[in-house]
Amino acid sequence: MDKYRVTILVDDLEKRVTCESGSILMDVFHHNNVYIEAPCGGKGICGKCKVRILKGKVSDISDLESKYLSHKEKQAGYRLACMTRILGDVQVATKGQGEGAQILSTGLEYSVDISPSITKKYVELDVPTVDNPRDDLKRLAQAIGIESPYINISILRKLPQILRDSEFKVTVTYDSNRILDVEEGDTTKQSYGVAIDIGTTTVVCYLVDLTTGKQMDVISDLNAQRPYGGDVISRIQHAMESSDGLNRLREAIINQLSQLISKLAKKNCISIEHIYNIAIAGNTIMGHLLLGIDPRHIAAAPFTPGTTQAQIYDAHELGLKLGTASRVFLLPHISGYVGADIVAGILASGMDKSQKLSLIIDIGTNGEIVLGNRDKIVCCSTAAGPAFEGANIRHGMGGVSGAINTIILDDGNLKYTTIDNKPPLGICGSGIVDALAVLLDAGIVDETGRLLGRDEIESQIGLKLADRLTEVDHLPAFIIVDSKSSGTGEAIVITQKDIREIQLAKAAIAAGVKVLIKKMGKEVKEIANLYLAGGFGSYIDKGNAARIGLIPAELQHRIIAIGNSAGTGAMLSLLSLEQYKRTSIIKDMAEYIELSSTLEFQNEYVDSMYFHV
Amino acid sequence: MDKYRVTILVDDLEKRVTCESGSILMDVFHHNNVYIEAPCGGKGICGKCKVRILKGKVSDISDLESKYLSHKEKQAGYRLACMTRILGDVQVATKGQGEGAQILSTGLEYSVDISPSITKKYVELDVPTVDNPRDDLKRLAQAIGIESPYINISILRKLPQILRDSEFKVTVTYDSNRILDVEEGDTTKQSYGVAIDIGTTTVVCYLVDLTTGKQMDVISDLNAQRPYGGDVISRIQHAMESSDGLNRLREAIINQLSQLISKLAKKNCISIEHIYNIAIAGNTIMGHLLLGIDPRHIAAAPFTPGTTQAQIYDAHELGLKLGTASRVFLLPHISGYVGADIVAGILASGMDKSQKLSLIIDIGTNGEIVLGNRDKIVCCSTAAGPAFEGANIRHGMGGVSGAINTIILDDGNLKYTTIDNKPPLGICGSGIVDALAVLLDAGIVDETGRLLGRDEIESQIGLKLADRLTEVDHLPAFIIVDSKSSGTGEAIVITQKDIREIQLAKAAIAAGVKVLIKKMGKEVKEIANLYLAGGFGSYIDKGNAARIGLIPAELQHRIIAIGNSAGTGAMLSLLSLEQYKRTSIIKDMAEYIELSSTLEFQNEYVDSMYFHV
Repeated sequence: MDKYRVTILVDDLEKRVTCESGSILMDVFHHNNVYIEAPCGGKGICGKCKVRILKGKVSDISDLESKYLSHKEKQAGYRLACMTRILGDVQVATKGQGEGAQILSTGLEYSVDISPSITKKYVELDVPTVDNPRDDLKRLAQAIGIESPYINISILRKLPQILRDSEFKVTVTYDSNRILDVEEGDTTKQSYGVAIDIGTTTVVCYLVDLTTGKQMDVISDLNAQRPYGGDVISRIQHAMESSDGLNRLREAIINQLSQLISKLAKKNCISIEHIYNIAIAGNTIMGHLLLGIDPRHIAAAPFTPGTTQAQIYDAHELGLKLGTASRVFLLPHISGYVGADIVAGILASGMDKSQKLSLIIDIGTNGEIVLGNRDKIVCCSTAAGPAFEGANIRHGMGGVSGAINTIILDDGNLKYTTIDNKPPLGICGSGIVDALAVLLDAGIVDETGRLLGRDEIESQIGLKLADRLTEVDHLPAFIIVDSKSSGTGEAIVITQKDIREIQLAKAAIAAGVKVLIKKMGKEVKEIANLYLAGGFGSYIDKGNAARIGLIPAELQHRIIAIGNSAGTGAMLSLLSLEQYKRTSIIKDMAEYIELSSTLEFQNEYVDSMYFHV
Repeated sequence: MDKYRVTILVDDLEKRVTCESGSILMDVFHHNNVYIEAPCGGKGICGKCKVRILKGKVSDISDLESKYLSHKEKQAGYRLACMTRILGDVQVATKGQGEGAQILSTGLEYSVDISPSITKKYVELDVPTVDNPRDDLKRLAQAIGIESPYINISILRKLPQILRDSEFKVTVTYDSNRILDVEEGDTTKQSYGVAIDIGTTTVVCYLVDLTTGKQMDVISDLNAQRPYGGDVISRIQHAMESSDGLNRLREAIINQLSQLISKLAKKNCISIEHIYNIAIAGNTIMGHLLLGIDPRHIAAAPFTPGTTQAQIYDAHELGLKLGTASRVFLLPHISGYVGADIVAGILASGMDKSQKLSLIIDIGTNGEIVLGNRDKIVCCSTAAGPAFEGANIRHGMGGVSGAINTIILDDGNLKYTTIDNKPPLGICGSGIVDALAVLLDAGIVDETGRLLGRDEIESQIGLKLADRLTEVDHLPAFIIVDSKSSGTGEAIVITQKDIREIQLAKAAIAAGVKVLIKKMGKEVKEIANLYLAGGFGSYIDKGNAARIGLIPAELQHRIIAIGNSAGTGAMLSLLSLEQYKRTSIIKDMAEYIELSSTLEFQNEYVDSMYFHV
């Protein structure tokens, strides 16, 4: 088969590689350790892996790819790396994304000094003689400049043999004054970490090379605790109901993490013994269940967690099946409902370092909101419910294949797209926001959130869509996809109840934002950046989010989707002990505002309920 | 039964207690927490538990007791507490030994500030409210003034429940920034430690109250590793011979320690969970076997240990069956043949703090020798062999019941005593030294160490004893006890070979002392104190030790027997973290002199071989 030369331009650097004819460009990047942002994992559904073909022959733009590129981008040679095949010698430029110390995540770039907690050092020791009879440990400790190291007994046991087998040439792995491992020869390059975001729904593990800072792989799975309850409250109930419920939940996640990490190691041909650091971010309840701490007191007022502080444990203390040297860095939580995932997000956003005021909204099961800058940070959690994740919505679904992800009105006609261009199966969060915006624009939903009767509709556009009004289970509803076009054989609708769910959720978020802004003594216009975290934030139509009142209209052009910022923050904590320590500084400076039962929040909540028409 | 009042004077303090008629005085002390030195455990064989009866009626002096008291002491009312029964109201003074922070050991007294590594603190916490929703751990940490504590996961798991069950009134046990336990209510008084001396032959465990500093109990046992070899070299060989030999030795001592500690706890009605600190001193080989580290490289030049540094481990890391909160403080070694037992002895002697020059000789399997003061410490180990412990001596035995422990010449007649006044079964170390001194004085052994023939004897005394000369297995021998008087039915003798064993051993010790004195650039007369460690040191006749050349004659009146100084040092390390840290300072300042194969030692060894006649 033909081999083509691919010249990859990363910032000012050039990397020349070869590939076979027909190779997908993203695969070429991966095989040659060029990292490029691809939140969807190369499925062609996120449109984030844009690169610019400067020279050479590649495959034509497909219809799917075309959707993610503007006319201007196409003219400039931009393509999606995941959908472009190499058909000749090619020169390609990445958008400032490349090798080295950068971690990339949707909308944010980081340049972090790589200085993880552990150090690996290759040393050649003097061989003992009668004139130099220092003991083995002392010899080793002096070579790495540590006075009185702590050393795991298991390592101490193998030390004399390893030193003599290797003729006193060994690699020492250590963390401040703890010697974690000693290996024959030079293994300094084999140093890895795993950053983990434990979501209530999904667990994501990022494999990171601790010497280069590169993200090597990512793997995700549904949280294994899901059979015991879909949301945090039902998990807490399961933990309380039976004597071994808590332990069952703990074992589920611990075993899952062991398996996911083992899978990452195998897939990337690295020894599990070389995975030294694990950084974990997750919400407070997930953090408690991971440690086996009863979370019941978080469920009811005064919502007291067992612990919120950052903590470092040996992996085996947690029950993780990892190497002896493996240590787990738990990120701190702020309160029972603002967890380590949010702390990691703040870290990723750089809010705590910036002079500018920014707002973070993480819309998941709860809506956590953070407002601040380097001087002050306030945060809260709103019981926004999981409507924006498609839960409690009649035809709601997650952002997976076949979900309606965009809905637009084109000259009064309703149009939609689905993920992977599959026949529609339901509506995901961004589609729901679009649907509501469309209904408001069409005058079919009024400012109170009521779905009007056919006879009440006055707007021109609304009248065009009036045929789509129907009833489902005695509830007024609006048809997005009729039964013929639907992938399920059943019409896909938005019901009055769905609209109420969204309305309540957006009111809670909007009210939370207002409370925080007041608390800071600021105004909306002073907010420089609005960071939207989570998958939802990456796909949402910003205008429509403002249209339905989910976010302040003034900020719609200041939105930056930061994707899985919990994962990014965990990765930063993994790559730099300094960054990990910053999470505790963030925790300490963040003031948590308890919204429940405060009149101030209730007032704002009611005020935020209506839509602007 | 009648109750009598006993008034105990301890220094300036008076303690009034009652007892039943006929009670042994030492038991009265023990029951009332008055501690008095009794290395033999109250068997009436060490004569160390002298007290002075100031008033009142007690039992008459027995013949055995009488031996340990001088005429002057008897007149002054001195008695042995272990052999004196209370027969009326009594007033008794101890010799400056009492309650409080003093640990007593033969010849040495300590006053140490009690500040063990752990702290127990009773706290009453604020109950969480919505206005004060700090998490449980933070609440606890703030109450004890620790910013970000490390806390064992198992303790963290039980924390929420314990706080609520106790209405937030708990006792926290912590060690610097580690929270080790949390208990309901006030348990601050229940805080114990165990100091352990692991000898090659014997393991001794001292139970210590960490709040009062009192030694509560002591228990000892033969080292469970003995079936695998009587001395360190045969233990090392066992560890090397089979693949699981090392682990077998490790398990033997670990299980033994678990059992001994458990026994101490049961006997003293304390919870094993309240034994927080274990301090362990032992020789370097014992230290390696305890941790499961292959000691083979200590056996041959350059005699390299795996580790010598002080180390703190959680008890469970070592495999000890103790409470979760229990931590083990391993004392440091100086070299492969000068171990933590010697470091503990130096600590106990106070050598490192004193301006005066002192010498420590620990005569056991090896003879370890330390010379120094607060400016400089030098030490060495001589292969003196275990002759002074009765090993390799034809009728040698340990210092147990029936052993001949003193031999004197009374007007040319040979007289002896045995331990417990039992019929003689053999000779222990102090008896052997006495025997050799007697034979030298009688002119039966000449300066070269040769047992003369009957016809060669010229001295008046020797001629009186000449009938005792005989042959055993074709070896010249001297009868100490004839077969009729012997408890074994066989004559108890000292053979020519026994004399050679002693001769070689004393020459090694004497040469070691000379090498160290030279190394320090000092002279014998500058040595202010000669500390003799070990049981042997407590019972030996000082004049006879000088007579046979084991110790410099100039120092015979400066001898202080310091008993089990390894145990004393371990206890000091347990009671005060400061003292434990001092062991590492001692280790670092001590210069180890390797005697083997140095001409200097060989010269002194040959020079020390002969006896002075």
